[in-house]
Amino acid sequence: MNKYHGRSTTVLRPRTAQEVSAIVRHCNERRIGVVPQGGNTGLVGGSVPVKDELVVSLGNMNSVRSFDDASGILVADAGCILQSLSDFLLPHDHVVPLDLGAKGSCQIGGNVSTNAGGLRLLRYGSLHGSVLGLEVVLPDGTILDQLTTLRKDNTGYDLKQLFIGAEGTLGIVTGVSILTAAAPQASNNIMLALPAFSNVLPLYKEVKRQLAEILSAFEFIDRSAYDLAVKHGQGRALDEADVAGADCFVLVETSGSSREHDEQKLYKLLEDLMGQEPSLINSGVLATSPAQFSSLWAIREGLTEAVGKEGKAYKYDISVPQDKFKEVLDITREHLASKGLMHDQAVKHVVGYGHVGDGNLHLNVVANAYTAEIESALEPFVYELVAKYHGSISAEHGIGVMKTHALPYSKNAVSIEWMKKIKNLFDPNGIMNPGKVLEL
Amino acid sequence: MNKYHGRSTTVLRPRTAQEVSAIVRHCNERRIGVVPQGGNTGLVGGSVPVKDELVVSLGNMNSVRSFDDASGILVADAGCILQSLSDFLLPHDHVVPLDLGAKGSCQIGGNVSTNAGGLRLLRYGSLHGSVLGLEVVLPDGTILDQLTTLRKDNTGYDLKQLFIGAEGTLGIVTGVSILTAAAPQASNNIMLALPAFSNVLPLYKEVKRQLAEILSAFEFIDRSAYDLAVKHGQGRALDEADVAGADCFVLVETSGSSREHDEQKLYKLLEDLMGQEPSLINSGVLATSPAQFSSLWAIREGLTEAVGKEGKAYKYDISVPQDKFKEVLDITREHLASKGLMHDQAVKHVVGYGHVGDGNLHLNVVANAYTAEIESALEPFVYELVAKYHGSISAEHGIGVMKTHALPYSKNAVSIEWMKKIKNLFDPNGIMNPGKVLEL
Repeated sequence: MNKYHGRSTTVLRPRTAQEVSAIVRHCNERRIGVVPQGGNTGLVGGSVPVKDELVVSLGNMNSVRSFDDASGILVADAGCILQSLSDFLLPHDHVVPLDLGAKGSCQIGGNVSTNAGGLRLLRYGSLHGSVLGLEVVLPDGTILDQLTTLRKDNTGYDLKQLFIGAEGTLGIVTGVSILTAAAPQASNNIMLALPAFSNVLPLYKEVKRQLAEILSAFEFIDRSAYDLAVKHGQGRALDEADVAGADCFVLVETSGSSREHDEQKLYKLLEDLMGQEPSLINSGVLATSPAQFSSLWAIREGLTEAVGKEGKAYKYDISVPQDKFKEVLDITREHLASKGLMHDQAVKHVVGYGHVGDGNLHLNVVANAYTAEIESALEPFVYELVAKYHGSISAEHGIGVMKTHALPYSKNAVSIEWMKKIKNLFDPNGIMNPGKVLEL
Repeated sequence: MNKYHGRSTTVLRPRTAQEVSAIVRHCNERRIGVVPQGGNTGLVGGSVPVKDELVVSLGNMNSVRSFDDASGILVADAGCILQSLSDFLLPHDHVVPLDLGAKGSCQIGGNVSTNAGGLRLLRYGSLHGSVLGLEVVLPDGTILDQLTTLRKDNTGYDLKQLFIGAEGTLGIVTGVSILTAAAPQASNNIMLALPAFSNVLPLYKEVKRQLAEILSAFEFIDRSAYDLAVKHGQGRALDEADVAGADCFVLVETSGSSREHDEQKLYKLLEDLMGQEPSLINSGVLATSPAQFSSLWAIREGLTEAVGKEGKAYKYDISVPQDKFKEVLDITREHLASKGLMHDQAVKHVVGYGHVGDGNLHLNVVANAYTAEIESALEPFVYELVAKYHGSISAEHGIGVMKTHALPYSKNAVSIEWMKKIKNLFDPNGIMNPGKVLEL
């Protein structure tokens, strides 16, 4: 994003939870603000100092503490890079239950602190379920050790849950115990072209029914997003005939323990879909090689880059009911048109893609340049639209410093009041990542 | 259990969250204790008044508020009985992501408040992952509405998590939003007889590797538990030859979207296991009919009844590392023997069974009668043993009123201190389910 630049001059790189504790205790006594920093890959400025806070980087705490290949439970320092954990698990036939574009830089402590969602949520669920324990340095320097390796433990309040998604405002996560999953033996994918958006949900239901436990992704790409991907170098996997007349696309991925069985299920699905009259799909392309598998994913994964090449993007990461994805895109486009902003010198495209299974739409407004006029046309308009659908203004990116002002669009007053009480209970001096999640 | 008898004379049965709010506000102003009660099926006295508290029964709040068959998200009143929700979902081809023996009486609000685990945890994960939103009446009568139907929402602290497993001590859950799963099209099971406990974990690894996404249960039954089940009328599914020389048994269940595929995977697994030299198993019985499927499950599900018929049971629901299940049973048996208590007039059997996948062992000490001598031989002995393994003294049953004194065996001082701070923040007057989870 390159949007937030910190002004801190001091970055400390502790090697143990005890060192983190000593730093935090010192800062708490002197009322010095502290910003915990993982891989610094967030999109909402959550890990960037806003005044002159001291940065505590977790990057030197990067050891795997233990792994049990029977239970699949991994205990790691917060500073372990997500990709390193994946690499560590590979020979043990296990996978981390989350996957992100930023995996080469982001750290597991940051993933937990931001409740990162990513590409595997449909399959493995949220971190609130898969994180089993945490070690956290509280704002007064106390080490809260809840680094259990138990899958089940019903002995009182599950305090660690508060730190999942708190973006480092209640304490610094220094260690993580997480349930990893048995590695799938086979992955397959298929790109489906749909004649109309209204077919997406009926298709999702049918795909869920037939693929059930092997379904690992169901990604929506609208036509304009697809066209951008093609324009900027992706989309070789589909030919003219596949694309003709398509209003939108769906990428379905399966992960399972038997390639043969999974392929049979996919062929049957495709056969059933094509045999229906009228069919929910125009065409379907099933990957038949690892190269084709990658090419199909490249369309979806290349969208961020394509949008970046096309212009300046206003990005909204929202949750809305799945059947409203198109409505949100259309209303936003019409609104911008009514302001006289839908043309090549202002907003070039309003495109959408996202995780249908999670109700998570990435709404991208691609402009010729960032301008105050476009921004004021978009905000609070988009937030109000999301609130109208009782949606979330931040499905997975968090609040950071960027969206604190917009929190009331997704959280009611009672909830915000209780968030403040919790913040005040843990951090009465307000030293921990000040100005993030809650406004100063 | 019939162990806890409340002494309250007043039971209120509100019909709405607003009515619950009015009751609680009244009680808070007058410092009257309140005990929220669901199906009252708990095993640790969590829903029973200990003094003269007023009982708020949720049974009249029993409507499904909404269900979306595309997303699978169900919103229900807290008083909905678990079985009723299953019945409601059946025609929609979905299942509640938890299943308990008490399903005919327990209520979803109680399930959430006790963080019930049960038989589907291995497959669908914990309620911390599948509960998407809650409506809670706080101890001051405020209604905290976090009844979202969003699968992903990263807008600040996930406060609802605190109420999952708080056993009604922080507020009364009145509504639940939960992610349900697509119903499996086929379920299969297989009972494996093992020559030695040391084979259980290698077997679990192999089963996880081969069955992966279709594995829905991996239940351990030790030989003495099995023998009790047979003695009291279960066990017709296995014949002498299957049982001969078995040290313990494992019941494996699969749930998937294709019976044919699942059976092929099970046959292959059985073939591979029998072909190994030496084999991890003595024999395996694969259910080939719905009746046999039920018979195999009946062995496992009949254990509680068998134990009850055999004598008086001291029941411990603990989490310990999976490879320590037998050690815990053996050490307990030896300890009781050293106290001269292992004979027909005192402790008749020490038996064990449980959810290997979850690390959850049900340790049952079956005595001729409840006596002070046996109890003092068992407690704190068992708790100390669990603490030695960094286990949990309550894997799924909770703390209730029964185990508050034992909490320190599973939670460190810092954690308990913070639990008290949280309790005091939400309930400064201590009116909400007093004496549960935390001692008065």
